[in-house]
Amino acid sequence: MIQTKAYAAQSPETDLAPWTFEHREVGPHDVRIEIAYCGVCHSDLHQIKNEWFPGIFPMVPGHEIVGRISQVGDHVKKFKVGDLAGVGCLVDSCQHCANCQADLEQYCLEGSTGTYNSLDRSGNPTYGGYSTTIVVREEFVVSVSDKLDLAAVAPLLCAGITTYSPLRHWKVGPGHKLAVLGLGGLGHMAVKFGVAFGAEVTVLSTSPDKEEAAKALGAHHFVVTKDEAQVKAVQGSFDFILDTVSAPHDVNQYLGLLKTDGTHIIVGLPTEPLQLPAFSVVMGRKSVAGSSIGGIKETQEMLDFCAEHNIVSDIELINIKDINEAYERMVKGDVRYRFVIDIATL
Amino acid sequence: MIQTKAYAAQSPETDLAPWTFEHREVGPHDVRIEIAYCGVCHSDLHQIKNEWFPGIFPMVPGHEIVGRISQVGDHVKKFKVGDLAGVGCLVDSCQHCANCQADLEQYCLEGSTGTYNSLDRSGNPTYGGYSTTIVVREEFVVSVSDKLDLAAVAPLLCAGITTYSPLRHWKVGPGHKLAVLGLGGLGHMAVKFGVAFGAEVTVLSTSPDKEEAAKALGAHHFVVTKDEAQVKAVQGSFDFILDTVSAPHDVNQYLGLLKTDGTHIIVGLPTEPLQLPAFSVVMGRKSVAGSSIGGIKETQEMLDFCAEHNIVSDIELINIKDINEAYERMVKGDVRYRFVIDIATL
Repeated sequence: MIQTKAYAAQSPETDLAPWTFEHREVGPHDVRIEIAYCGVCHSDLHQIKNEWFPGIFPMVPGHEIVGRISQVGDHVKKFKVGDLAGVGCLVDSCQHCANCQADLEQYCLEGSTGTYNSLDRSGNPTYGGYSTTIVVREEFVVSVSDKLDLAAVAPLLCAGITTYSPLRHWKVGPGHKLAVLGLGGLGHMAVKFGVAFGAEVTVLSTSPDKEEAAKALGAHHFVVTKDEAQVKAVQGSFDFILDTVSAPHDVNQYLGLLKTDGTHIIVGLPTEPLQLPAFSVVMGRKSVAGSSIGGIKETQEMLDFCAEHNIVSDIELINIKDINEAYERMVKGDVRYRFVIDIATL
Repeated sequence: MIQTKAYAAQSPETDLAPWTFEHREVGPHDVRIEIAYCGVCHSDLHQIKNEWFPGIFPMVPGHEIVGRISQVGDHVKKFKVGDLAGVGCLVDSCQHCANCQADLEQYCLEGSTGTYNSLDRSGNPTYGGYSTTIVVREEFVVSVSDKLDLAAVAPLLCAGITTYSPLRHWKVGPGHKLAVLGLGGLGHMAVKFGVAFGAEVTVLSTSPDKEEAAKALGAHHFVVTKDEAQVKAVQGSFDFILDTVSAPHDVNQYLGLLKTDGTHIIVGLPTEPLQLPAFSVVMGRKSVAGSSIGGIKETQEMLDFCAEHNIVSDIELINIKDINEAYERMVKGDVRYRFVIDIATL
């Protein structure tokens, strides 16, 4: 067994604190990664606070993992010791259902295995990237280019793929007007990808003071959603809205901004149901759709696209001792745009 | 001015009762239709009771109109006196916006003119088909085949096109599993069209006693949604759910029945917002979409399809004196499947 240092929540009521656990030995199809950096996702906090569903404790969060491979199993083909590698939200799936066969492991019909707060195929709890080491089947590990700033790559494993995948699925590109709702970890990546794909990108925000930052990310337009005149000017104008907000919010307020046949794509996960008046989708044949991360093949494609186009996340690197304070700042939106833990501080 | 006998609601508090009003004279682009039959739509009741928005009173409902043309304007090209004709939910639109140009007059960007409870382009109230006569621009009149039972054609003008249009838009056909939610005026047409388009059709219903009727309409399967075992057996199995229910209902209950990438299409208009947990669309990349009636060109295409495939609505013909009682029965679901008023009784 592999002794692993980590930060864990012992219960939903406690802060994260140092803890030690054991990973399984490296099996024939596994790789072992010495974790260099791990991104801090809002869902880490949702899960340690039991806001989505009752969690498995102690819980070691973290599913935006990058590091270097230190050991490979006998049958591993894709990786060798010394390679840079990443792990996102999934570490396993049935690998034989129709969705897994279609490279949609995130929608595995038998249920995929989460990187943490999940039970693996043997029934053991999984532990995430706020730790020194992780052991993962090679099919769920992706290659990371050495061309990019490794710490800033970490958030691509969740925030990146979560926004890349729907933009690809709905074929967002030249000629499309895309609105990005929420300018946090996901939103800032959505702006970068939307621009890279050739769409005309507008950031919708309640805060006028985010305009400069939005434009710096490449957004073509900025709309303050509390300003009636600005909102009126963009009624019926967007082909797509990518909604990255994970706090409760009024989706209906934004459906009027869509063109006929427009699509509002939800990638955030508010804990309360959205209120959706039937009229708001019936009038204009609109859709409210959802999308969850992406499959492993697409995650690799996204990382390769990022290496080619020099795209990474804008991050604030933190010492793991400051993680609880970082959560407080994240909830207030006081981060541009993603905290990343320097695992060397663990 | 054309004196017209009708049944009208004088206010949201009163029953329908006899009334007389004046239609405009037949203009150069107008046709005058002597109404033979008018279908009774749930939205008639929603509107006279002000359940959607404050109405224009007195209100003459009715937007499932068929009859014979008795007069045509000098510039009318498509019709001649004696032709059978139909009028649905729209009698005008701007005719020049992008949506009108794309034969989507129902989504006219300047606002289409409803057949009743609307103001026409001159600012005068429109009156519907619970009346002896209607005067309409020829662009908003469709041809009706004499091969079909005329009374049973009437509901095609709303219930027909409202279900035909989304099934065509989402290209529902061979290889697709379609569930129809609600077996009323819209639902029974959805079953007929779904079967005609080659889909495998399942009716979802709370009432076990509707199974025989559903099968008689051509449905391949029937699921009692109160029966847990039956519902479990169809989890994740449908490509599309066509939701025709206009009473408040729990959409989330049905999203689990969709396949990955499945679409729940709303055509009913409940007065309360739907409750939509983000998880239910994010997990499986599902969509909740809406669709409103259809454009005029598509309405004609639908009527031609019906003539070719011998499709009409299943109706119960009523005397207009019984309209208030018919509403009571409609609310209870006590009609198979659409009341149609014999305007000769007016």
